Amino acid sequence: MEEGSLNTEFVLLDTKESTFDETWKPVWGEVSSIRNHYNELLVQLQQKTTGKKLNIRFRLFNDGLGFRYEFPEQPNLKYFVLKQEDTEFALTGDHKAFWIPGDFDTEEYRTVTSKLSEIRQKMKDAVTSNVSQTTFSPTGVQTPLMLKSQDGLYINIHEAALVNYSAMNLNLDDRSFILTTFLTPDAQGNKGRLQAPCDSPWRTIIVSDKAGDILTSKLILNLNDPTRYQDTSWIKPTKFMGVWWEMITGKSTWSYADVDNVQLGVTDYSKLAPSGKHGANTANVKRYIDFAAANGIGAVLVEGWNVGWEDWFGHQKDFVFDFVTPYPDFDVQELRRYAASKGVKLVMHHETSSSVRNYERHMDAAYRFMAANGYDTVKSGYVGNILPVGEHHYSQWIVNHYLYAVTQASNYHIMVDAHEAVHMTGLSRTYPNLMAEEAARGTEYEAFDGNPPDHTTILPFTRLIGGPMDYTPGIFETQIEKVNPRNHNYVHSTLARQLALYVTMYSPLEMVADLPENYERHMDAFQFIREVAVDWDDTKVLEGEPGDYITYARKAKGTDNWFVGRTNDEEARISHITFDFLDPSKAYLATIYADAPNADYKTNPQAYLIRKIRLTSKSKLDQYCAPGGGYAISIFPEK
Amino acid sequence: MEEGSLNTEFVLLDTKESTFDETWKPVWGEVSSIRNHYNELLVQLQQKTTGKKLNIRFRLFNDGLGFRYEFPEQPNLKYFVLKQEDTEFALTGDHKAFWIPGDFDTEEYRTVTSKLSEIRQKMKDAVTSNVSQTTFSPTGVQTPLMLKSQDGLYINIHEAALVNYSAMNLNLDDRSFILTTFLTPDAQGNKGRLQAPCDSPWRTIIVSDKAGDILTSKLILNLNDPTRYQDTSWIKPTKFMGVWWEMITGKSTWSYADVDNVQLGVTDYSKLAPSGKHGANTANVKRYIDFAAANGIGAVLVEGWNVGWEDWFGHQKDFVFDFVTPYPDFDVQELRRYAASKGVKLVMHHETSSSVRNYERHMDAAYRFMAANGYDTVKSGYVGNILPVGEHHYSQWIVNHYLYAVTQASNYHIMVDAHEAVHMTGLSRTYPNLMAEEAARGTEYEAFDGNPPDHTTILPFTRLIGGPMDYTPGIFETQIEKVNPRNHNYVHSTLARQLALYVTMYSPLEMVADLPENYERHMDAFQFIREVAVDWDDTKVLEGEPGDYITYARKAKGTDNWFVGRTNDEEARISHITFDFLDPSKAYLATIYADAPNADYKTNPQAYLIRKIRLTSKSKLDQYCAPGGGYAISIFPEK
Repeated sequence: MEEGSLNTEFVLLDTKESTFDETWKPVWGEVSSIRNHYNELLVQLQQKTTGKKLNIRFRLFNDGLGFRYEFPEQPNLKYFVLKQEDTEFALTGDHKAFWIPGDFDTEEYRTVTSKLSEIRQKMKDAVTSNVSQTTFSPTGVQTPLMLKSQDGLYINIHEAALVNYSAMNLNLDDRSFILTTFLTPDAQGNKGRLQAPCDSPWRTIIVSDKAGDILTSKLILNLNDPTRYQDTSWIKPTKFMGVWWEMITGKSTWSYADVDNVQLGVTDYSKLAPSGKHGANTANVKRYIDFAAANGIGAVLVEGWNVGWEDWFGHQKDFVFDFVTPYPDFDVQELRRYAASKGVKLVMHHETSSSVRNYERHMDAAYRFMAANGYDTVKSGYVGNILPVGEHHYSQWIVNHYLYAVTQASNYHIMVDAHEAVHMTGLSRTYPNLMAEEAARGTEYEAFDGNPPDHTTILPFTRLIGGPMDYTPGIFETQIEKVNPRNHNYVHSTLARQLALYVTMYSPLEMVADLPENYERHMDAFQFIREVAVDWDDTKVLEGEPGDYITYARKAKGTDNWFVGRTNDEEARISHITFDFLDPSKAYLATIYADAPNADYKTNPQAYLIRKIRLTSKSKLDQYCAPGGGYAISIFPEK
Repeated sequence: MEEGSLNTEFVLLDTKESTFDETWKPVWGEVSSIRNHYNELLVQLQQKTTGKKLNIRFRLFNDGLGFRYEFPEQPNLKYFVLKQEDTEFALTGDHKAFWIPGDFDTEEYRTVTSKLSEIRQKMKDAVTSNVSQTTFSPTGVQTPLMLKSQDGLYINIHEAALVNYSAMNLNLDDRSFILTTFLTPDAQGNKGRLQAPCDSPWRTIIVSDKAGDILTSKLILNLNDPTRYQDTSWIKPTKFMGVWWEMITGKSTWSYADVDNVQLGVTDYSKLAPSGKHGANTANVKRYIDFAAANGIGAVLVEGWNVGWEDWFGHQKDFVFDFVTPYPDFDVQELRRYAASKGVKLVMHHETSSSVRNYERHMDAAYRFMAANGYDTVKSGYVGNILPVGEHHYSQWIVNHYLYAVTQASNYHIMVDAHEAVHMTGLSRTYPNLMAEEAARGTEYEAFDGNPPDHTTILPFTRLIGGPMDYTPGIFETQIEKVNPRNHNYVHSTLARQLALYVTMYSPLEMVADLPENYERHMDAFQFIREVAVDWDDTKVLEGEPGDYITYARKAKGTDNWFVGRTNDEEARISHITFDFLDPSKAYLATIYADAPNADYKTNPQAYLIRKIRLTSKSKLDQYCAPGGGYAISIFPEK
């Protein structure tokens, strides 16, 4: 046995069994009350040759298993470098898998649906280009990994409570169908630096013969610690618009001037000629504020408000942003006043350009600036290769940073929505100001080179298993040429399905992503977005098959209002649902926003029909869904 | 020509010549007025094949040359990765060299004196062990590099104004005697990441046929920019004692408890049993404060005052210190009150354990804690391998950090003395709160495994060329067994030479390093330390030969008082000096602290004689110096 390996020659010291059964209330969520019920087995091992102790703790739930490694305080193991972790998931066959390429830096790949045995041949095409990417194996995949066996068992593999540890990918042996953990390396190729006593994250397996059970499982949240914060009253779900999509489509720019080389603190922006294409100017922001205020949208995000965007991209620039200096045409004080007068919050943007040390150096000033100017939510971003060089987005060193940003934010009562960060692992239970992340291929890619029409029928089974996704839905004008004539991409979705996403892509921070003028042309459809909630008492999965369709029903927190959403893949389908989740003693008025019969995400996306019907708990519905379509239903008790 | 090389195929675009002649006053220094007089040649080049522009700026002084590379703003070069810099110093022969092994992480080697051709064979023995070290070549050496040619020319090679660039070592080709720059790599093996417009540091060559001219050259300072700070009134040279040597010798400990594994924020120190050996306890600190107050020493450093020392060393621990939480037996408030009541400042200690991100995370709180508690000076340390992993003490990324710590400190009017940091390059002109560094093998090594008796006859020609060294002199009890019976090392110096070091090892922060009880036995000798200044109007080198002896005379700023110091190598010698630097119109009373005739650093270090004589500018002195000895003279105008 080589020196330092801790995976063999153990003796069993002891085992302890226990049961835990508790119900807890999340600060926000898909449900308002969660039962945490498991049987636990603690296995205490000692390595014969070295005396090193290792515990493995198993928690068995009705819908799955979590286990983790624990390195107890002991004389023979204190500080150690983790070279690798060899947890194996031995699958029973060549399952169907919904996978993205294993990578240390990005999750922004289209999901591939294939058998495990096909991963190797499909990998090359799956690895589309990204400004920061590092694949590691021709059969490497990320988690959450969604699987379906031949005999219809749904299996989801992931991790929970990723704290101070390297993030997990999986490496498939495609002869044995064994998946082995493959952690993200640091700049020296090691997987972590640990000090006993400490624990690994939980490795999780959620299992059911019903796809919907995967979606509603609370196993990952339950394996995380209860919230650390004494006071959580400042944490509030919201919808938000954004001076953003107009830049993503290329209609306007984040940058202010047409130069390609600036030095913060040196470049005098007041002397630069504005390009005239800068999106985040005071007047434009006010337009969004006006629309938000008029339509009950609580907040407006503004990207490109701060100096440095002229040369931020792709250079791994160190001092790239300072997070506090606005462009000459962005009036911080005036917009603070204006937004407050309209009852709208502004959402801050901290694109870090992955210059992580730079962000940490400025973080305190940046958060104080937010607090001083009425911002209580920040969308952060980590586009590009990480600085310090050699580290990866998912290495222990950077995993540590993301949580540092969240806990520091909590000192200022700031909520965080992190883009390009490490996959979520239920940490929002412990740190409920971590509202959402992107950490997957979101709506923005529709403006770059498209998302498949079944994309959102998969993401809840994969990306969202660890936590909410800021998917930024709500694009009504799916033909992007209408926004920017030079951009010939299109959103692979009908308008009706865009409404459904507010129900099917759960997030406490839900973006209303399109331009006001694109909503103004469809205010009848927009009514659904006005009304849909962002925080829930209860959630049901009415229908679900990964890659095909999902239909959710959710009850708005503290109300008797329900919202239903269906997202559909590229096939026209009929959705068959019942309303037995409704209160049998009540009658309801429902508004259904659905694809017209001739709707199609490619050829006729904006063909939708709105109708109102009366519902009871005995009602049924057979509803047509177009290719790349779906429907949304708002359900209010009759007066 | 390989893509990306910028060292060949240039055309000369233009040259510009100019002259500069200005006198400036440093905030503190060896002299109060410095003339900056050079002829400058700016050479503007363009690479034929790529169009890239490169300037080389030369500044020729009477005593040497500085040149640097400038990457002007240009279309063909914006962001680039520096793979290597190939500046060559083509020496004319097999010079005598005073060198330490080239290394990316430590300067704490004994200087080796040899011909260049002998470096290769002597390298193995020269590379003594250090907790953080990375040699790179069997003929690699550090700078400042001191050389002496066969025909008596003294040559010193170094760099000035090291800002946002990787630190320089030199790699010797020992057949051609060409030294080529060898920069410190980052975690990916590159030497830097730059954005044009930017400049390299100055590469410097100081030359004279008089050794003393090397010591008094102001070339390095002159190549640095004038001070950035508007107000420098808060920057004050001082002497300081320290609760430090008792831990270095092993008499007491930095740590509070006898455990070897702590977690900050988790470990409850109030529940740990104190070992009884903790040096930084309130009563002990008060002893030092009392002695300092009674003897005109302005400050007391305390190391080991803060939690975390039990397991700080050698683990590359991330969250190792928080810089604000004292041990249970160190009363911050009481010591603040006590020191203030005695007119003594306390000097803060920030040992970072090279956990650089951790230091930056806590830096603001740490500096605010200092400001709130009356500390205006901090000694920082970078013991151990750098975190983030893969970086080196002298890489661009970490060079950037040291200066960040200094500029951040200036916001709090804090002065900095950095240990284990990158070699100094005259930055104290621009940032005069960078008072000193260790950045070489200091007095502490006498307690580990000794410094050669000629060590301090070399350091001013090497280490101190870039700036002051916190050499921590003043050890009276050179037999360390008398301090800690288990430590059998000894200080390779006579007591008289320890006094001389206050003159020969220039620093605006001068430590009075021994224990009070060791001074109390020799208060007659201690009188010199009481009186010696730490800031100077003028400095003369009366005698000097690297590796043999140096005699300095310095005039205390704003007074007519002079101090003379002589440091001597392992040979008994007679020093021959005149006093023609004195005011010819005055008479002076001098006190000479010298080795007794039978003194010897090994066998009889504490044999010294004190005598008083009357001096004028016409006086001469022939003074015996013992092996490893020297003398100190205080000279005051007669009343």
